[in-house]
Amino acid sequence: MSARQAPDGHSLDGLFRPRSVAVIGASRKPGSLGRELLKNLFLYEFEGKVFPVNPKADVILSSKSYRSVLEIPDDVDLAIIIVPREHTLRALEECGLKGVKGVVVISSGFREVGGEGVAREEQAVEICRRYGMRMIGPNCMGIINTQAGVRMNATFSPTMPLPGSIGFLSQSGAMGVAILNHARSLGLGVSMFASMGNKAEVSGNDLLEYWEQDDGTSLVLMYLESFGNPRRFTQIARRMTRTKPIIAVKSGRTAAGAAAAASHTGALAGSDVATDALLSQCGVLRADSIEELFSMALAFSSQPLPKGGRVAILTDAGGPAIMATDALPSAELELAVLSDATMAELAHGLSPDASVKNPIDMLGHSNHVDYERCLKVLLKDDGVDAVISLYVPPVAHEASDVARVLAQVSNGCGKPVLCVLMAQEKVLERVKRDFGSKLPIYEFPEAAVGALGAMVRYGTMLARDQGSVPSFDVDRERVAGIFANVHDSGRKNLNLDEARHVFEAYGIPFAKSQLCTSREDLARVADEIGYPLVMKITSPDILHKTDVGGVVAGIRDRAEMEVAYDQMMARAQAIEPKPRVDGVLLQEMRENAQEMIVGVTTDPSFGPLLMAGLGGIYVEVLKDVAFRVHPITDVDAHSMIESLRGAPLLHGVRGRPRLCVEAYVEALLRVSQLISDHECILELDVNPFMVGVEASECVAVDGRIRIDPERATR
Amino acid sequence: MSARQAPDGHSLDGLFRPRSVAVIGASRKPGSLGRELLKNLFLYEFEGKVFPVNPKADVILSSKSYRSVLEIPDDVDLAIIIVPREHTLRALEECGLKGVKGVVVISSGFREVGGEGVAREEQAVEICRRYGMRMIGPNCMGIINTQAGVRMNATFSPTMPLPGSIGFLSQSGAMGVAILNHARSLGLGVSMFASMGNKAEVSGNDLLEYWEQDDGTSLVLMYLESFGNPRRFTQIARRMTRTKPIIAVKSGRTAAGAAAAASHTGALAGSDVATDALLSQCGVLRADSIEELFSMALAFSSQPLPKGGRVAILTDAGGPAIMATDALPSAELELAVLSDATMAELAHGLSPDASVKNPIDMLGHSNHVDYERCLKVLLKDDGVDAVISLYVPPVAHEASDVARVLAQVSNGCGKPVLCVLMAQEKVLERVKRDFGSKLPIYEFPEAAVGALGAMVRYGTMLARDQGSVPSFDVDRERVAGIFANVHDSGRKNLNLDEARHVFEAYGIPFAKSQLCTSREDLARVADEIGYPLVMKITSPDILHKTDVGGVVAGIRDRAEMEVAYDQMMARAQAIEPKPRVDGVLLQEMRENAQEMIVGVTTDPSFGPLLMAGLGGIYVEVLKDVAFRVHPITDVDAHSMIESLRGAPLLHGVRGRPRLCVEAYVEALLRVSQLISDHECILELDVNPFMVGVEASECVAVDGRIRIDPERATR
Repeated sequence: MSARQAPDGHSLDGLFRPRSVAVIGASRKPGSLGRELLKNLFLYEFEGKVFPVNPKADVILSSKSYRSVLEIPDDVDLAIIIVPREHTLRALEECGLKGVKGVVVISSGFREVGGEGVAREEQAVEICRRYGMRMIGPNCMGIINTQAGVRMNATFSPTMPLPGSIGFLSQSGAMGVAILNHARSLGLGVSMFASMGNKAEVSGNDLLEYWEQDDGTSLVLMYLESFGNPRRFTQIARRMTRTKPIIAVKSGRTAAGAAAAASHTGALAGSDVATDALLSQCGVLRADSIEELFSMALAFSSQPLPKGGRVAILTDAGGPAIMATDALPSAELELAVLSDATMAELAHGLSPDASVKNPIDMLGHSNHVDYERCLKVLLKDDGVDAVISLYVPPVAHEASDVARVLAQVSNGCGKPVLCVLMAQEKVLERVKRDFGSKLPIYEFPEAAVGALGAMVRYGTMLARDQGSVPSFDVDRERVAGIFANVHDSGRKNLNLDEARHVFEAYGIPFAKSQLCTSREDLARVADEIGYPLVMKITSPDILHKTDVGGVVAGIRDRAEMEVAYDQMMARAQAIEPKPRVDGVLLQEMRENAQEMIVGVTTDPSFGPLLMAGLGGIYVEVLKDVAFRVHPITDVDAHSMIESLRGAPLLHGVRGRPRLCVEAYVEALLRVSQLISDHECILELDVNPFMVGVEASECVAVDGRIRIDPERATR
Repeated sequence: MSARQAPDGHSLDGLFRPRSVAVIGASRKPGSLGRELLKNLFLYEFEGKVFPVNPKADVILSSKSYRSVLEIPDDVDLAIIIVPREHTLRALEECGLKGVKGVVVISSGFREVGGEGVAREEQAVEICRRYGMRMIGPNCMGIINTQAGVRMNATFSPTMPLPGSIGFLSQSGAMGVAILNHARSLGLGVSMFASMGNKAEVSGNDLLEYWEQDDGTSLVLMYLESFGNPRRFTQIARRMTRTKPIIAVKSGRTAAGAAAAASHTGALAGSDVATDALLSQCGVLRADSIEELFSMALAFSSQPLPKGGRVAILTDAGGPAIMATDALPSAELELAVLSDATMAELAHGLSPDASVKNPIDMLGHSNHVDYERCLKVLLKDDGVDAVISLYVPPVAHEASDVARVLAQVSNGCGKPVLCVLMAQEKVLERVKRDFGSKLPIYEFPEAAVGALGAMVRYGTMLARDQGSVPSFDVDRERVAGIFANVHDSGRKNLNLDEARHVFEAYGIPFAKSQLCTSREDLARVADEIGYPLVMKITSPDILHKTDVGGVVAGIRDRAEMEVAYDQMMARAQAIEPKPRVDGVLLQEMRENAQEMIVGVTTDPSFGPLLMAGLGGIYVEVLKDVAFRVHPITDVDAHSMIESLRGAPLLHGVRGRPRLCVEAYVEALLRVSQLISDHECILELDVNPFMVGVEASECVAVDGRIRIDPERATR
């Protein structure tokens, strides 16, 4: 059960599997953290030795107290530090000298308070690195390991966790307390718990890797407020979720940053689409609230994954069954269609008033014998992937009997069984306590349905091919040259002509276009391209051309073109401050194709995000878009498109032909490669990208690229 | 406190305010319903007399038992009937003879079992009507009135409700039990409760009217599975919600019916949009689950309505405050911006590490003194409409102290204060029990935010002008004639030319069009309309013309037109079974306008539903539509449009001009009048209705009407 060595060679065993613990800042004062934490170690019957450390006390909680960790005559594996902020660094230094392997710093007054706290945190990390100590915190509420041979509750939480197989990571101490309270009330058992605080030395990623290797932990729950290193998280979580489910509540919006606001993609990437995209790409299940986190955890911790989403609902009351049935579609579940044999067998022994068509309503006088028999019948039916059993205990019936038979019958049957028990609070509590570790028990139907839906989604994710990142033959040098030129001219935004060349260099076809830098060029260029055509103003200072009358479509002849040109130039002259105008782009008209968008924006913590969606004017109005964290695989690109409400527009609808989705997928993948190759790209819109029936009809007709010129090197 | 007489002259007072109750089917058998119900009457200390009735027992629960209700020497106001189904009618007959005013029939075996049960229910109602008795049930779990002077628990629920001001109506007995359990655990008090069962005589609407007049009931909660008479519900609820909030959980999807599936509108009206539309038009708040119902009820039952959605969050821990802040936007709430004076006053006395910018984080050592002071400061700030106070009790602090000061300070302050207490289960239970009636206490932030959002929505509804149903000058007779012709020709579907005339008769402009019944007519008609034009096949058998190549647009001259005609006829000939073809409609081309839809479908229980949304091909793909139950007011029409994601397309976006929304509103209202005037209309699509910049550019270019020919009378 020993965990893999962490990358730096220092395992977290010193933190989570110590043989001796010093509590530096242990206290005699009732209600103080230093006393509560020490008491928890004793109460929970830590299997190793506990040494209180306090310069002013001889004995604390009947235990000999030491003036300093250095005075302890035995080896010390783990030190918990709960001293005033100004004494923390000396305590850490002494731990280092003592040869302590891990420290948990409860004290606050570090990075979270800014100013001198930031410096204090840097020094703390430096001390740990110097002595090879691993540190959790500072500004945390401690850690727990319930496993046999350890049994350590090194927190000041008033709740003693039940032993179990859940690893629980909380970035917030207060949420940690709430989480331990709630887990206990649901009968959910924890293997290890860590309140991460400021994550100055040991990160959430370190802990995930530790739990990945821990045989006692089979499910990981996380309360997160930020990602320290999203790329490393992605690597670890992608691998880990293949064998151990991870369920996360992520709160706190990612600031998409001012840089992003200038593009369509940036404007849509607000709130936390990046987090959603990242978690789903890694196979991490996201819960919207702590309650939902626990609903899911209840099911995952005791039930096998269903093979599919066909659910049988077994009930003794109609109302709750209707509520469960109503909730199925939004969890992407469906009512199982029972075989005739199953229905006949169910009917046997039930009242003639009972309904044996799913949902199976056994009516209000049903007891544990009915539940046992009917559940067995349902589990045998090949058309049933999972059973949700609802029970409203009638007068003088014992809810425990029903819970017991459900737990017994479901155990080892290979299909998940979830129980909804709508009983008095005290009955519910008792049944949860007695059977909660074997049977997920919910108070209301919606929570059970939601949890089962998460299991099906997880199963689908496990079965899914992750796809691959293709490599296209492109002209990388040419694009590097364009970016370098932009840098040299002191700009950030490419003009449309430059953007077109970038797209073409990466094999993203662009409508036949040519830049005209003077009125005299117009006629010659128009003859080359052919009428009808579109005229677009080309300026590094105008981001939204349509907003300023900078696009005129349907130009049919030279006269119309020259009028359009003169008017466009006049409108541009009227803008304040006056934009630099490079000229106009003349472009062939492309119609009768679906306008889509390919977008890129840069999230300050996640890096580039790719966006697919309905293009043109609909982008911002309908916001029918999908995001993924870069880089994307071919499977990712297809799944982005399928997640759009407008996907049927590509597949052919109402007599319209199927369009060349493949060309759009390729455009997404080529843009992904473009941003892999050129880290200077901050934002990019290909909008609209016209998707026609044939690949040859699929072209970009407009686009925009914004770079960080400092990162544009030849 | 006496309630208004019901429309039929028989008040429900006999049911809910009896001075004497007979329990027919009272039993000595432990665990039987007849014993549990009798016991509840005694245990809850009913203020009137209780008479057990059982032909085989002398004494039940130490009380003299009678062989028949007729043997009882006193008057009997209310009889509870819990006898086997075959004895129910005789018991009812005896109640009638005895002069009983109200009966509650717990027994099952009526309409819900079909067959002879249906007949039994009809007879039961007949008996009640004959004797002027009001009946709740059959197949229900009883009724409760907690009010002083009554104190009646005439249910077999194991839970004794707390007295309070909530009226609770449950259509399902099992949900009723669950609801009473949950209300008790939250400390929520009930004025009256009724399990309605089959609603054979007393309906939910009757009960709403009764509670509307009851001074002891200020908030109504409902668990519904169906609406008996949606039009009456609408009348009552629209009036009642102006003074007493109604919160409903409605489960069970309305079957939109096979008739609806043929139209765009019908296809989109599936699931329960009708319920959503009806409830929101009446001002009834809809909860998605029992849990959400109670979250809302907690807030509504003890807190005043907020003036707006600006929320201050007061906390002792960062994590929960982030979760609360994250939840605000989806509840349409926002963080209040505090005044400088408020922030300065908050800072006074808090740690320098504390944050006084909303959310206000007082940090982890805060106690009830801090909460009291800061809450008072926040409530004084004119920029704060409501306060959500989060509390994670630190070690050895008393959660009750904080709850007490929050309850004290908020009492009478005029602004709602909601409390989130993230504590151990036993602490939470105790605090809820002690303070739940004065302060809404939640376990997690999301529930508090959701409940506050519902209060703001309710306040907005109260402030909202309901608008009026305008009356347009139309040619009603002409349309009646068209429908009669359709009836005479044995059809249900109007052809496009007929539909056009109906629209024009109701002032809904239609693009210049003319039906050509032969190839020879084409050229003449085309010259009248002018090129370019659109050709549309006209057949009562072809509903979706584009699906069969029945629409050709952009015809520029006679040659193109004739080719298009020949091809269209050939395609129509190839369809099996061969459709009747009336000819083709030639129509002027309308471009550069926004395609919208006006739709009507008929819900089997709610009647006609009106739909607004993005039209053309986008209707079914993007499903950006809004429904209302007919008839709609001008305010309804505007709010339908504003609820569309695509609304900005009408208001002008990205350099596009504002379109004539008024013309679209008028089209919706004229269609509403059309279906008011002609009840035979089952389905109708005006799609697309082109909305241009000027009213003169707003025209329907296609449409479809389907009628019930039996209701089409001249």
